[in-house]
Amino acid sequence: MSETTPITGVYLSATTDLDALYGDALRRAAKDVVLRHPDEIDRPEDVRFAICWEPGEGAFAPYRNLGLAMSVAAGVDALLSHPGLPKTVAVARVRDPHQAELMAGFAVHEVLHHERGFEEMARNAAQARWSPIQMRAPAAVQVAVLGHGTMGRAVVRGLRAIGFAVRVACCSMPELQLDGVSYLTGPGAVTSAAEGADHLVNVLPLTAETENVLNGALFDRLAPGASLVQIGRGEHLVETDLEAALDSGQLKGATLDVFREEPLPATHRFWRDARLRLTPHVASDSLPEVVAAQVIETARALRDGRPMAYAVDRSRGY
Amino acid sequence: MSETTPITGVYLSATTDLDALYGDALRRAAKDVVLRHPDEIDRPEDVRFAICWEPGEGAFAPYRNLGLAMSVAAGVDALLSHPGLPKTVAVARVRDPHQAELMAGFAVHEVLHHERGFEEMARNAAQARWSPIQMRAPAAVQVAVLGHGTMGRAVVRGLRAIGFAVRVACCSMPELQLDGVSYLTGPGAVTSAAEGADHLVNVLPLTAETENVLNGALFDRLAPGASLVQIGRGEHLVETDLEAALDSGQLKGATLDVFREEPLPATHRFWRDARLRLTPHVASDSLPEVVAAQVIETARALRDGRPMAYAVDRSRGY
Repeated sequence: MSETTPITGVYLSATTDLDALYGDALRRAAKDVVLRHPDEIDRPEDVRFAICWEPGEGAFAPYRNLGLAMSVAAGVDALLSHPGLPKTVAVARVRDPHQAELMAGFAVHEVLHHERGFEEMARNAAQARWSPIQMRAPAAVQVAVLGHGTMGRAVVRGLRAIGFAVRVACCSMPELQLDGVSYLTGPGAVTSAAEGADHLVNVLPLTAETENVLNGALFDRLAPGASLVQIGRGEHLVETDLEAALDSGQLKGATLDVFREEPLPATHRFWRDARLRLTPHVASDSLPEVVAAQVIETARALRDGRPMAYAVDRSRGY
Repeated sequence: MSETTPITGVYLSATTDLDALYGDALRRAAKDVVLRHPDEIDRPEDVRFAICWEPGEGAFAPYRNLGLAMSVAAGVDALLSHPGLPKTVAVARVRDPHQAELMAGFAVHEVLHHERGFEEMARNAAQARWSPIQMRAPAAVQVAVLGHGTMGRAVVRGLRAIGFAVRVACCSMPELQLDGVSYLTGPGAVTSAAEGADHLVNVLPLTAETENVLNGALFDRLAPGASLVQIGRGEHLVETDLEAALDSGQLKGATLDVFREEPLPATHRFWRDARLRLTPHVASDSLPEVVAAQVIETARALRDGRPMAYAVDRSRGY
């Protein structure tokens, strides 16, 4: 690996101090890949790449030799739709196996939370009431998973390991298929996965096709009293449809980790809805060492003119 | 399978209506295995077996031709130590694969609950506060599992599927070993498994050797701020040691599903301890169809003089 010519990148985030999160790991891992805050950059034309998390509106403007914008997270929808990012700039993202396991853990926890009545048990315990609750055989519990990328596959593995029956909507039929999992593809895959499901887990990427996918028509396909675990993107969910489904009892509860506006404003009515479990976009996270290694590898590939393993297909959107 | 000679059994429970739970499934599954409540039995000498859950003190006395006492649950400690059960009566138990998956789901849920800070997030959400919490790579999280029977194996599989590092104390070295799991045997296995662990899950059977195994000396081996998930038997836990470990901060929290006295009396101080998550012995359950099938198979084996696949080794205790 060439370590001779340094390559310079810039941290671009309107909301987060990326140097505080990843700077140490990056400096430890390489000398030839240099990251700077925008205000530390004297010659913007030397900046070849950006690492990004919610970059501001004009963030990319100063850097005319930019060849790469890399997201520190798995989702790149905000980068791809950023009006200031030229279409010629490559977009890449971190692919962290730990991140997928974190996501799987979160999804498994929330499905179990709804399935096993932990809310009701907590209420009983608060009143010193011993009241065993009914349980179903895991194999009789149908979980629909929307999305079968790195995240979706990890979620499916986690759910299968504790015995749930899983149906997953995939964009293409996977080569490796697990026992007890039905893989669905094609235009009707999302609807078919949801049909009669007791729990619905969304880990789709956000694209024009998947926006508003979590809507009343989909909720109506689920088994009555189903639960929703929403760990995709806020834009997947039609918020008023969710509330209507909770009102009618078609949904018994929902876990929301992602929102159309993040942080979720303190004034949002969701905070006061006892049927919702709200978490602050923590289903998973990238680990600094992994982010650093993949940023460095991608920056070097850009510098050396090699293919970038973590690049995304801009036309496909993920 | 011989279905000619009927064999008669009796429901023995001081706390539960076993006919309500399993009667339908038993009647659907076989005509030649007949179960009765004690007050429906005219000729006690005809009763060849009992199916049991917490049988009363003198429950076995009327049945002098008893050849088998079968527990509807996985634990047989209460049966084996029952003073009224002659040592010559075979003891058997249900082994339900779904039961192990239910147990695994419960354990995975509780480890994740402690590991991922769901308590703190719920407090934040109640105050409309968006406050992302730190997370660790699952592979950096060490979980100790005590016990590697049907239950322990399922728990280990569940924890591994979401990436946790697992050490398990086994009574013998298993043939099938999973990647990422350390298997420990011998007198020091429990202590070694606990060494530096972030979470401790107990699924040991209750025997003379394992009583009080969850004590202060063991808690001191764990990483500071560890959590306990107690889904074995109430007698495994030294309650005052648990409280001392919570007081000192050595333990950050604990989930208790089993207790020395069940139902846990409403006056027990545990109910008012906010550091404890209490659930009413619901980590797992036997499913009626599975109980029925295994009771019928075992009763027929007794009648026909065949080996009983679900019998336990009375000398070993599980």
